[in-house]
Amino acid sequence: MTDTVIGSATKEVVIGFDRPFVIIGERINPTGRKLLAAEMKEGDFSRVEADALAQVAAGAHLLDVNAGIPLADEPAILATTVKLVQSLVDVPLSIDSSIVGALEAGLTVYQGKALVNSVTGEDEQMERVLPLVAKHGAAVVAITNDETGISEDPDVRFEVARKIVNRAADHGIPKSDVVVDPLVMPIGAMGSAGRQVMALVRRLREELEVNTTCGASNVSFGLPNRHGINGAFLVMAIASGMTSAITNPLESETMDAIMAADVLAGNDLNCARWIAKHRQPAAGGAEGRRRNGRRRGAAPTT
Amino acid sequence: MTDTVIGSATKEVVIGFDRPFVIIGERINPTGRKLLAAEMKEGDFSRVEADALAQVAAGAHLLDVNAGIPLADEPAILATTVKLVQSLVDVPLSIDSSIVGALEAGLTVYQGKALVNSVTGEDEQMERVLPLVAKHGAAVVAITNDETGISEDPDVRFEVARKIVNRAADHGIPKSDVVVDPLVMPIGAMGSAGRQVMALVRRLREELEVNTTCGASNVSFGLPNRHGINGAFLVMAIASGMTSAITNPLESETMDAIMAADVLAGNDLNCARWIAKHRQPAAGGAEGRRRNGRRRGAAPTT
Repeated sequence: MTDTVIGSATKEVVIGFDRPFVIIGERINPTGRKLLAAEMKEGDFSRVEADALAQVAAGAHLLDVNAGIPLADEPAILATTVKLVQSLVDVPLSIDSSIVGALEAGLTVYQGKALVNSVTGEDEQMERVLPLVAKHGAAVVAITNDETGISEDPDVRFEVARKIVNRAADHGIPKSDVVVDPLVMPIGAMGSAGRQVMALVRRLREELEVNTTCGASNVSFGLPNRHGINGAFLVMAIASGMTSAITNPLESETMDAIMAADVLAGNDLNCARWIAKHRQPAAGGAEGRRRNGRRRGAAPTT
Repeated sequence: MTDTVIGSATKEVVIGFDRPFVIIGERINPTGRKLLAAEMKEGDFSRVEADALAQVAAGAHLLDVNAGIPLADEPAILATTVKLVQSLVDVPLSIDSSIVGALEAGLTVYQGKALVNSVTGEDEQMERVLPLVAKHGAAVVAITNDETGISEDPDVRFEVARKIVNRAADHGIPKSDVVVDPLVMPIGAMGSAGRQVMALVRRLREELEVNTTCGASNVSFGLPNRHGINGAFLVMAIASGMTSAITNPLESETMDAIMAADVLAGNDLNCARWIAKHRQPAAGGAEGRRRNGRRRGAAPTT
């Protein structure tokens, strides 16, 4: 049993074995979103605000915050974004950058215990990021590539994860504060990618005893109906023991797949969250019942 | 590697490890369908015909045929239904009855190698059904309950499966012709039901080396949005090694979940079936391309 506790000033979220799967909202990220990138660069954060509120309303437990905009002052923009999002919502944040100075700027203004996204197994990167994580008492996402790139061999990726966990320990960071991303290959390019990740997630859980996360959407790269593949991938990942993912909570198909997988994995006690979501009243009425006892807005059960 | 070959007069279907998941269409069954029951009893098989054609069009690889109507001549109706369905479609059939005389009547008129649905671990039932299966060179679904009922303990259900496989061998039926149903409990009543079945399917595959099937919908009994739970259950089952299911191919959500799971389990070579289904042209044009090279009807890929 490994619990990774992430916190804001007022709220704690636990990523852990045999707990409900933790959804890290991926939307606040200008990569591939030209309009958002241009707005953030000019100091217009209205879309960030909307994305923050919508993702939390849709059920995100954490929000990832990224400000990677070419030719912009990423540390300053990331710090501004972190402060803004924390003023709007109480969920904890994942502070996301490949630039160490930006991570530092974000951590400096962050209220609570952040998740730092990310550190790789590259020596130089570990020696710059891990002291920062330790100094701020944060947790960190460990990406299983190193100087040699991303190995197609899952055993090599497992060893990179072990290396990062050990190095983190050298810096005083317990393994419960390292959340490993086993890296998902596109299934269209590598037919074994799905089975590989399932086996790797199981090893990470049983041998290294760490929590896990992933950016699920890479698995469906190049295929039609990507939501269908992504949802099934997350179900399989949860069945294999994965404990969180960076994904889009606004995709209801993905959210339903995650919630159903939590039911089937036994992580949704008495199916309470599933029932609450799918038996919501159509409008008004907190109890969702008419006086005659019939529920409104209940899904068909055939 | 275990292959269970089922055949009609003109077509063979293989249920097997590391092959695409086999979908057994469940619709031709008057249980709980009052109108269909009344029609079949009166000799009106128009709905059976429509169900047969629609299920095959939707992608069913086998069709289950059941004629269990109270106070009706089930053997005669089942034989008529089997003949009718075989005259309409070329997919092999699963002949489904709890009455041995009805199984016999169905097998007598069946063209090819049928799947008999089903035999339990009850001694008397095994001694009546297995000789029939052997005589007709059929395969059989083995249900993992016995005289003591359905055990909540998956280890007991595993031992019932082993008993049936051994008894089948005594009758000259190889284990490759026994497809085990591990029995799925409602997750709303038993929170461990999902994990139980996953573990049991893995044992049946690795230790007993048999193919597996299930009626997936029992898992969601009593819950809202049952399709959501059923689809996720099938994904987890496929990830665990299940090789077929008796389900409704007309539910597109379920079919998409199964096909996505096949992609991720590496059972859909080069994702060819997924791509063919989801890149179909909107109308006409076998190639699905306009002359300018753009595909029609392609799903959005964001």
